[in-house]
Amino acid sequence: MIQGNFAVAQSGGPTSAINATLCGVIEGAFSQGRRIYGAVNGILGVINDSFTDLNITFSNMDNIQLLKTTPSAYLGSCRYKLPASEDNYELYEKIFSNFKKHDVTMFIYIGGNDSMDTVRKLSAYSKKYNKGVYIVGVPKTIDNDLMNTDHTPGFGSAAKFVATAVSEIARDCAVYADPSITVIEIMGRNAGWLTAASALARSNTSDAPHLIYLPEKQLSVEKLINDVESCKARNMVIAVSEGIKNENGEYFSNLACNISHDEFGHAQLSGSARVVENILKEKFGIKTRSVELNVLQRCSSHFASRTDLDESVKIGKAGASAASEGMSGIVMGFKRTGNYSIDIITNNATDVANLEKKVPDSYISRTFNDVTDDFIEYCLPLVQGEPSIITEKGIPKHIAL
Amino acid sequence: MIQGNFAVAQSGGPTSAINATLCGVIEGAFSQGRRIYGAVNGILGVINDSFTDLNITFSNMDNIQLLKTTPSAYLGSCRYKLPASEDNYELYEKIFSNFKKHDVTMFIYIGGNDSMDTVRKLSAYSKKYNKGVYIVGVPKTIDNDLMNTDHTPGFGSAAKFVATAVSEIARDCAVYADPSITVIEIMGRNAGWLTAASALARSNTSDAPHLIYLPEKQLSVEKLINDVESCKARNMVIAVSEGIKNENGEYFSNLACNISHDEFGHAQLSGSARVVENILKEKFGIKTRSVELNVLQRCSSHFASRTDLDESVKIGKAGASAASEGMSGIVMGFKRTGNYSIDIITNNATDVANLEKKVPDSYISRTFNDVTDDFIEYCLPLVQGEPSIITEKGIPKHIAL
Repeated sequence: MIQGNFAVAQSGGPTSAINATLCGVIEGAFSQGRRIYGAVNGILGVINDSFTDLNITFSNMDNIQLLKTTPSAYLGSCRYKLPASEDNYELYEKIFSNFKKHDVTMFIYIGGNDSMDTVRKLSAYSKKYNKGVYIVGVPKTIDNDLMNTDHTPGFGSAAKFVATAVSEIARDCAVYADPSITVIEIMGRNAGWLTAASALARSNTSDAPHLIYLPEKQLSVEKLINDVESCKARNMVIAVSEGIKNENGEYFSNLACNISHDEFGHAQLSGSARVVENILKEKFGIKTRSVELNVLQRCSSHFASRTDLDESVKIGKAGASAASEGMSGIVMGFKRTGNYSIDIITNNATDVANLEKKVPDSYISRTFNDVTDDFIEYCLPLVQGEPSIITEKGIPKHIAL
Repeated sequence: MIQGNFAVAQSGGPTSAINATLCGVIEGAFSQGRRIYGAVNGILGVINDSFTDLNITFSNMDNIQLLKTTPSAYLGSCRYKLPASEDNYELYEKIFSNFKKHDVTMFIYIGGNDSMDTVRKLSAYSKKYNKGVYIVGVPKTIDNDLMNTDHTPGFGSAAKFVATAVSEIARDCAVYADPSITVIEIMGRNAGWLTAASALARSNTSDAPHLIYLPEKQLSVEKLINDVESCKARNMVIAVSEGIKNENGEYFSNLACNISHDEFGHAQLSGSARVVENILKEKFGIKTRSVELNVLQRCSSHFASRTDLDESVKIGKAGASAASEGMSGIVMGFKRTGNYSIDIITNNATDVANLEKKVPDSYISRTFNDVTDDFIEYCLPLVQGEPSIITEKGIPKHIAL
């Protein structure tokens, strides 16, 4: 058993489940009778020695309960790419001296694939220079695009939001006798997992969405128009990923306007649905509109997936255990067993960091405009159950730092 | 007591509570042992003799329960302006002969202020030509802009969605250390009730939204910039109505692009938040984004206001009673009593039809960028409580025609 204290931080884009994972890490630390510090704004909190003592607030179980259903990163987040240690030795020394100052020997980093690169680098540095800090990554991302895990914490809640919203919007579309087309834009720059989850909106009372386009397959304007012409639905609902590309590999959203880039060089996309809307409006001349589900996909926690929240707590706890057992440079993951349960596994951070898992061909219909039954079977268990929400004055109660 | 059967129809934009009102009308008819027909797609269903027998489906209480939490108009809707009887005598004769065909003597029309014009016209015609059909309007609109009622069925659920979404988005905004501005666009063409409801997002853990702009007060770009400069929040959240106008009375959304009009001559707006985003991005050069809450405001029923749903059932029942007592050309309404309960009242349709109730000055801060405590006191009771949602495969179950 490693001696010393825990630190934990959260990074990357928020999700509805990232605080459930934080709950798990805190509970893991408490179950070992350890002190646990939260670094504020991800690795920047460690660099700037900005830590908060989590023992006081979360010895109160009511606060743990609130934290579990509070969306977005309680500790704040960052989008910061840690430079290579060769390029900034002083920065690494600062990080480890700040850990030492608080007797932190175990650091749990909750984040996406960019953050797992930080886990890999810090762990390698700690080993090489005998810093005695064990560093474990716990994944979170609504994008579900991490390698070597069945799925990611946060995806199930986002998928449930998308399926629920699409089913509600489909009812809104169906009320008028006149034909219409509604294009719904769903997050996912290069991986279409969340857009694929829109298929879960289908039920006995609605077959919307009628067409589903993922970024994994190129989509020519000609094919789009043919697909729409072949669709018999009076009030058509089309789910498109923000990152759909045409046959030349150009983003639809690029066809409309210039784009900016975030700190990692990712294109900041918006508007693929608007572009599709305009194409179809011009071609068919019927009522056409577009809806961006936008940030609610990652922060609408009041109808989160209970399965996702429970698994997120579990993987956070397992991360704390792994660190205390002296594991480092690893990323926790899920392995699906039976129908349906989950085992927690560990991967080397090098097998996760900076990689992207796309939706495989077996989950995409041969017509490239829908998902397969295999995808539905994969996704359905992840969205089951609802959390108990504590409300105050009619809206969900949250906890803030 | 009037003899004969009931008919009911739904009109205008969908809401999360319009089917709860339909439940009330059905229950009202059943409690009198009457047959009740639903006209499909509003008054168009009456014109086209497209009726569905509601007795079969809804003698099953499970279906009533499902209907109560199914968003959007179960019977379909229309946006159809009934011409004056002087201009189309044949149309009116067709309507009343179709009523007669099914022995319909009581017609309940659930809709907004445009639909109440239909109630007024049909009732006047029935009286004038002794058609013996009693016509009662029951209001619904998320806009809360009907005269002579404390509030409208559907507003409470939309207000709860807006407050909840803004509180969740505010948490999403707060995670990064860098300053940012998020502009959230809320429905409401000329009346800012729903935008005002964003103030309910404030809690012990968040003071967002920091600025609230309603269409009732003109907003110069200069004032907007001054307000933002004076705001001390690091991660600012601004709630704007889709219909905000500048000091010349021009829609912000018009400043960006051309607009189309709907069948009633209403401007089809979108993009006021995008325009504000671009103004602030250019001025302040910090991370700025805009989010349109879009149609989810009126169809996101899974976290509806239980108060709203219960009141919607109650007013639907009262509408059925009023018609069976021989009242006609009236619109049902709410009167607030005590702290907090509701009496059902009736108004002449002429006092409701085609009129708009705007947010009064007493509910708008003197700085024109916030609401007053009086507004909070008014709005808070309307968003209380949550419905029990029946789910199937992880998403809310709906009922469809």
